[in-house]
Amino acid sequence: MPQYHTFSADYLRDFTRRVFVHYGVPASDAVIAADVLSKADLRGIDSHGVARLRTYVDMFTIGRVNPKPNIRIVRDKKSVATVDGDSGLGLVVGPRANEIAMEKASQYGSGWVSVCNTNHYGIASYYSLKALEREMIGWSMTNTSRIVVPVWGAERRLGTNPISIAFPGLKNPPIVIDLATSVVAFGKIEMAERTGVQLPEGWIIDDQGNASTDAGDVYKGGLLPLGSTREMGAHKGYCLSAMVDILTAVLSGANWGPFAPPFALFEEPPEQSVGKGIGHFFGAMEIDGFSDVEAFKKRIDDWIEVFRNTKPSPGHQAVLIPGDPEHAAEKVRSKYGIPVIESVVNDLKEISIITKVEFEVGQ
Amino acid sequence: MPQYHTFSADYLRDFTRRVFVHYGVPASDAVIAADVLSKADLRGIDSHGVARLRTYVDMFTIGRVNPKPNIRIVRDKKSVATVDGDSGLGLVVGPRANEIAMEKASQYGSGWVSVCNTNHYGIASYYSLKALEREMIGWSMTNTSRIVVPVWGAERRLGTNPISIAFPGLKNPPIVIDLATSVVAFGKIEMAERTGVQLPEGWIIDDQGNASTDAGDVYKGGLLPLGSTREMGAHKGYCLSAMVDILTAVLSGANWGPFAPPFALFEEPPEQSVGKGIGHFFGAMEIDGFSDVEAFKKRIDDWIEVFRNTKPSPGHQAVLIPGDPEHAAEKVRSKYGIPVIESVVNDLKEISIITKVEFEVGQ
Repeated sequence: MPQYHTFSADYLRDFTRRVFVHYGVPASDAVIAADVLSKADLRGIDSHGVARLRTYVDMFTIGRVNPKPNIRIVRDKKSVATVDGDSGLGLVVGPRANEIAMEKASQYGSGWVSVCNTNHYGIASYYSLKALEREMIGWSMTNTSRIVVPVWGAERRLGTNPISIAFPGLKNPPIVIDLATSVVAFGKIEMAERTGVQLPEGWIIDDQGNASTDAGDVYKGGLLPLGSTREMGAHKGYCLSAMVDILTAVLSGANWGPFAPPFALFEEPPEQSVGKGIGHFFGAMEIDGFSDVEAFKKRIDDWIEVFRNTKPSPGHQAVLIPGDPEHAAEKVRSKYGIPVIESVVNDLKEISIITKVEFEVGQ
Repeated sequence: MPQYHTFSADYLRDFTRRVFVHYGVPASDAVIAADVLSKADLRGIDSHGVARLRTYVDMFTIGRVNPKPNIRIVRDKKSVATVDGDSGLGLVVGPRANEIAMEKASQYGSGWVSVCNTNHYGIASYYSLKALEREMIGWSMTNTSRIVVPVWGAERRLGTNPISIAFPGLKNPPIVIDLATSVVAFGKIEMAERTGVQLPEGWIIDDQGNASTDAGDVYKGGLLPLGSTREMGAHKGYCLSAMVDILTAVLSGANWGPFAPPFALFEEPPEQSVGKGIGHFFGAMEIDGFSDVEAFKKRIDDWIEVFRNTKPSPGHQAVLIPGDPEHAAEKVRSKYGIPVIESVVNDLKEISIITKVEFEVGQ
């Protein structure tokens, strides 16, 4: 069993902030970037929190990220725009572009921003949740580097390309949808590889395009799209991933499909570049433009209650509402802290040595 | 093997138009409504074309559809609006509301319309394809009556709730995504029931919530969401279906979830009404607001070519582009006509007798 150390969210957030400042990120940007990673840890999405700090540090070290980007709108028409992230940290470019989408929504009822020249932006739901603070429905998508094969294909062509959308409740916590369009999160494959566990059939293929249950095969083969097989609807997962790729990258002029540059340094870069960085897509819609806000939130509450009271299938306690597990994690972790696995703690210690930003276990 | 008769698309479209006029639909609306059904037949989505005319006729006969609806914007803020369809034919309300979304996009860069008080609107991609004629990216969604169970649930709570989005190519035909968020289209279950074929595992459950391969069980049990099982990502299909339900029905004030009224008369109506009719959601985004239009279309062409050239997996010829099968069907059927199954031909003959609109086999 892996060893954990527990830290308060505030401590990790502050450490992260100071590390970003060390690499030249302006103070106000570093606060936001650290907040994005912290939100992942709080919501129990461990793969996207401080566990990723090491990779961001690597990217700064080799100069792949611009700490002081000139993030700018390169094309604009009222409710829509394209933003160039100037190779900034995705954790800075994402929040800024999402802010532009929300400002447009305040003015025009909705706002939609496609972003190029950016990189990994953290959890998709960080952005959709932000819109809720302004009585808006939030949308967020990003493309990522190739790991998913199209249906009937034997080559990685798409990323895990997540989609998030969030809707506010009145008395209930919001409905927060956040899903990778692959059959399973890539983190589950990594975990199985590390622990030597066989994968279920239908998650990955090998380099010949044949089904495999050996996690190591994913790097030369690939991950299957949501649906897994044609019979079970994998063409739909492929379509959803394609949709995300086009809205985020083809629309903005970022690298699309197999050309999206990898986040981690150990991943092989694509042979060719067809655009700038990776791409994001943000949307915000003012609820007030569609409905009385309180009446809408009340209907969301009713929806939640009806779905929660669905008769469960054998062996299950209850039907969940999208966002339930993350909401539960956030409640617990806000109070009792974030458990961080030993290997990540070691990464953080190394970062502390390199950057001279103080880090102590047991905070 | 079923018997087919072949008709020209024009003949069926004109017959449909005249049947709608017979039921009091204004001439210009009848043209559009017939065009929606015809597009389904042309694109090979047989379940949604003239095969559905009988059900529309039934709805007119019992007065459930208003032939002359006062379709109106009930709430509006620049790029967004809610439309009340006044219980009109979905085939009339849908195109009108989609038109409003596209007009908003011309003015504000994008347009987003949630619709209540409507009913079945035909194929989702009819609407997304319309946007392409104006150099826009088109979005379309609708909720439908309950047949899908949430993950871990044993009761039908959601419809097959499709999502469509379309992107134009320059020299290539457009990328057209149109997918039900259920594991499989309901039509495949109906077909298996009619022919007595066993279903694959993972499509449906029985009324106790257990896996079933007997198509007849779907009516008391239900269809599974895309992903099928929790391990294979059914929570994602459930989330996508929930997203469609909320954008179309909770937002507009239509009946959501298990309360969406059924299309076919033989389906049991819900115990309760929580809104007006069913709901749709349309979006249009001006490409020009994001990118030079021709440059975007060229990138779509490049995307198509890269994906088409993916190395195929064993036993497959090539990777398809979303919309390929429908595009191929449209080419063939525009030229050689629409094959219509005997039982549907008999429905059309009956409709002809009832309405006195002439219908002859072999046109």
